[in-house]
Order: sequence, then structure tokens, then C-alpha cells
Amino acid sequence: MANIFEKHIASVKDFPNEGIVFRDITPILQDGKLFQEATHELANYAKKRRADVIVGPEARGFIVGCPVATELGIGFIPARKPHKLPREVERASYDLEYGSNSLEMHKDAIKPGQRVVICDDLLATAGTLRACKQLIENLGGELVGAAFYVELPDLKGREKLPDLDVFSLVQYQGA
Amino acid sequence: MANIFEKHIASVKDFPNEGIVFRDITPILQDGKLFQEATHELANYAKKRRADVIVGPEARGFIVGCPVATELGIGFIPARKPHKLPREVERASYDLEYGSNSLEMHKDAIKPGQRVVICDDLLATAGTLRACKQLIENLGGELVGAAFYVELPDLKGREKLPDLDVFSLVQYQGA
Repeated sequence: MANIFEKHIASVKDFPNEGIVFRDITPILQDGKLFQEATHELANYAKKRRADVIVGPEARGFIVGCPVATELGIGFIPARKPHKLPREVERASYDLEYGSNSLEMHKDAIKPGQRVVICDDLLATAGTLRACKQLIENLGGELVGAAFYVELPDLKGREKLPDLDVFSLVQYQGA
Repeated sequence: MANIFEKHIASVKDFPNEGIVFRDITPILQDGKLFQEATHELANYAKKRRADVIVGPEARGFIVGCPVATELGIGFIPARKPHKLPREVERASYDLEYGSNSLEMHKDAIKPGQRVVICDDLLATAGTLRACKQLIENLGGELVGAAFYVELPDLKGREKLPDLDVFSLVQYQGA
């Protein structure tokens, strides 16, 4: 049975490339109560994991992660595409479901020993997730969980990081 | 006297281009209580303007606007760079403080008559703001306010939209 979040995800065929079904979360955001509820679910998860700070990768990770951070009153650290952050950065590269890219975090973004939960819209092949993990650990943080609106289990993202605790609101089998 | 927010904005010279002083809000985000307080100030403003929905331009507008939307329990509409939104879009072009770009919103993002407040990190020359206004009005919405962490009054952004109500946490004179 589709849950309330799944009903508000638009599945768009052949975007951005042929053969990809894009899972569009914008209808969740557009519904204020539902965006609040999704945020609350992820915030509960991050609280259980005793997160000190939330990391969100550009750009949809900002949408998902920032309200989680403000609900809990903990810091938010953006992981950005290259040349966007103005001060000294740490960089990691990763492969996407389609294409490749790099992410950067400010070197002073995380204090050694801080417990970090990553928030993003989608877990597919875990390329972004692994790059964030590398950045967090290079800065001395401890990655204690990852939370998503949508997970595509067939792409085996969880298996790339078997020791990581993962939470998702909606799972699409056969994606 | 510098307010608490100004103390947590990093001013970085010659970024992204020579002669630009970049106002970096990431230290605010990194401090959970301060990010919450900044969000609360903007949410109070949006509430006073009786906003039905928040619009945030990619990417820092997502950081600023999403927590405002969830605090108020109202919808969030991303204005994205071209080819990022998967469904049918409206597009507007604009000039930046440095360079130019276009923004897109989903055609069904705003319902006719909705009162919209734009949230973003920085008001400079108002290029992004004007593009968002055009998109909002093309979709039948009414732009009733705009809220920023930082404003550079010398760049005369407000004068580009004299009828628009504008709120900012920090103003840098002589920027």
C-alpha cells in the first residue's frame, strides 16, 4: 500500500536521461503539512541517532536537511559542488546514477568527534553518500546515519556502506 | 554595532571574482541555535506578510527558505537552474552581481492568488529576485514580500522593486 509520502512523489520517465525514472519530491514540499511531517520523521531519526550536526549535499540535500537541523536546533553543513564554498575546503569525488561530480565541505565545518547524520532526497547507488562519508571522516566527524525521502533498493546503495544505519520514507522496488 | 547574525557571517575577499567581498552565511548554519533564530525571524516576517507559500532560488535560497516553510507549515517552491526540474516549467532569465543565469519553476508550483514570500541568503542587485517575481506572477501568484539574511544596500536592490516589501537580518553599507 502506498504511504502518504509515496502518493506525493511524481515519477517522471526518461528524466534526466532515457531509461531513468526520476522521483520528484517537489509535490511533498508544495504541501506544507506534508513537508513538515516528512521533516519531523527525519528529525526523529536523527535524534535517535544522537546527531550533533546534519550534512546535506547540494542541492536537494539542502531542501531535505535544513529543516531537520532547525527542528532539532543543531547545525547544518552544506556539501557543495566545486568552487561554491569561499573558504578552505576538503574535496571528494563520486559517481552518480548518471554522470560524476565532486563535493566540497569547508575544512572547519565539522568538529572532531561530532556525530553526523546525512540527509538527502534519494538513495540510489550511494555515490553522493560515500563522498559525504569521506569528507565527514576526513574532517574528524563520525557518520552515524543517513536519512532519505526515497530509496531505490534495487540499486543496492545500502550494500556499499554495510555498517551504516539508513532510514528512508519511501522505497521503490524494481526501480 | 554588529548584531549576532553579522558576527557569524564570514566576509571573504575576491570570491568568486576579484573585487567581490563574498558574504558567507555557513557559520550561521553551523550554529544550530543561531540557524533556528535566523529561521524564526524570517518566519515571523513571512507570517506578518500572510504568506501562503515560500519560494527559494537555487541553491542558498533552499537553505534559507525550507526551514521557514516547515516552521510555518506552508509549502516550499524551489526556483531551480535550467534542466533540473523534471516536469513542465516556466522560465525567466536574470543578471547576477557577477554573470547571468536562468531560473525555472514547475508550472503547477503556485496556485492562482497565492501570497508568496521569497527567501534567499543575499539581496545584491535583485537580479534573482526579479526573475523569481516574474515566474511567480506568470503562474498567477502574488509576491507580497522578500526576506534575506544579508542585504547590500549600496547595490540598490530595493530600488529595482520599489513596491516590494523587503526584510533583511544584516545590512552591509559600503559593500
